[in-house]
Amino acid sequence: MNYCSNCGAASLVQKIPEGDNHLRIVCENCHTIHYQNPKIVTGCLPEWEDKILLCKRAIEPRYGLWTLPAGFMENQESLEQAAVRETWEEAQARVAPLSLYVILSLPRISQVYVMFRAPLQDLNFAPGVESLEVKLFTQDEIPWEQLAFPVIRRTLTHYYQDRPRGQFPVHVEELLPPSSSPLQTS
Amino acid sequence: MNYCSNCGAASLVQKIPEGDNHLRIVCENCHTIHYQNPKIVTGCLPEWEDKILLCKRAIEPRYGLWTLPAGFMENQESLEQAAVRETWEEAQARVAPLSLYVILSLPRISQVYVMFRAPLQDLNFAPGVESLEVKLFTQDEIPWEQLAFPVIRRTLTHYYQDRPRGQFPVHVEELLPPSSSPLQTS
Repeated sequence: MNYCSNCGAASLVQKIPEGDNHLRIVCENCHTIHYQNPKIVTGCLPEWEDKILLCKRAIEPRYGLWTLPAGFMENQESLEQAAVRETWEEAQARVAPLSLYVILSLPRISQVYVMFRAPLQDLNFAPGVESLEVKLFTQDEIPWEQLAFPVIRRTLTHYYQDRPRGQFPVHVEELLPPSSSPLQTS
Repeated sequence: MNYCSNCGAASLVQKIPEGDNHLRIVCENCHTIHYQNPKIVTGCLPEWEDKILLCKRAIEPRYGLWTLPAGFMENQESLEQAAVRETWEEAQARVAPLSLYVILSLPRISQVYVMFRAPLQDLNFAPGVESLEVKLFTQDEIPWEQLAFPVIRRTLTHYYQDRPRGQFPVHVEELLPPSSSPLQTS
């Protein structure tokens, strides 16, 4: 951010506005405060019998690695609408009903992942424009060394720990960098 | 948004970028796409015996009405850190541990509310700068007609429905305008 989006001046500074306690980007010309907030990434863990649907990424970052269908939530949609839309866009797959499953805060990159378990409605899936390949995997087939993101590994790890018990409680956690261990807070 | 925050030009248009399927604010001078995404509001339902802590708002909107302590999640914090921080800022109250309770999508205003149940650690609470008053309420005392926001009413309604059963499942819903009824999706 180089210019104020309100007045166009190159007068942006970082400071704590009066009555606030966080550093903000503030325009010294028109006094607009430019708040920045975390983004939500949401998606699904599509289930079919004992298999899970993964997508091989056709885009950077992590081109060629495997992920669950997920992406940035858009304005004017609900979490569930966003998760269903992303599953359709990336895997051309229909899922229902959605069950909230994993919420992971990633404070280092200011993102919150919200993942739902969701049965596939049929086998008519296919790669969307952001995927090279879409495929069902049994637990033994999951490409653990070729997963695109730590949040995907974490979500799948919960899933295979919970599945033998047949119970899938909602996991709310902070995902810390690899050097530290994840902090389970509820 | 009147000017491009990247190049300062007054060249912003609404269009669907190539390879995208959503209307975006795009700069025709430097081609920056200015994405806009929903914001997370998070907070707590602070419990003490059979009472719940509410805050009387000292700020607009809804000055003078009652709310649960909650506010916008900041960059570089986790959901739980944000909920604890807001509870401290608005009610000077310490809460632990947090249990995820209600997630409400508000697509009309592009917000997602994430509310936790959380026992108060002590009775040393007091109004923060954004509150006129902070007070414990029994169910009979809840000022239903003076609640600040529909999401607060909805969260408290769930709470008093769940409490007799002693079970507090996570509620994931879309909060629709008052003319329609809320859609419970999981």
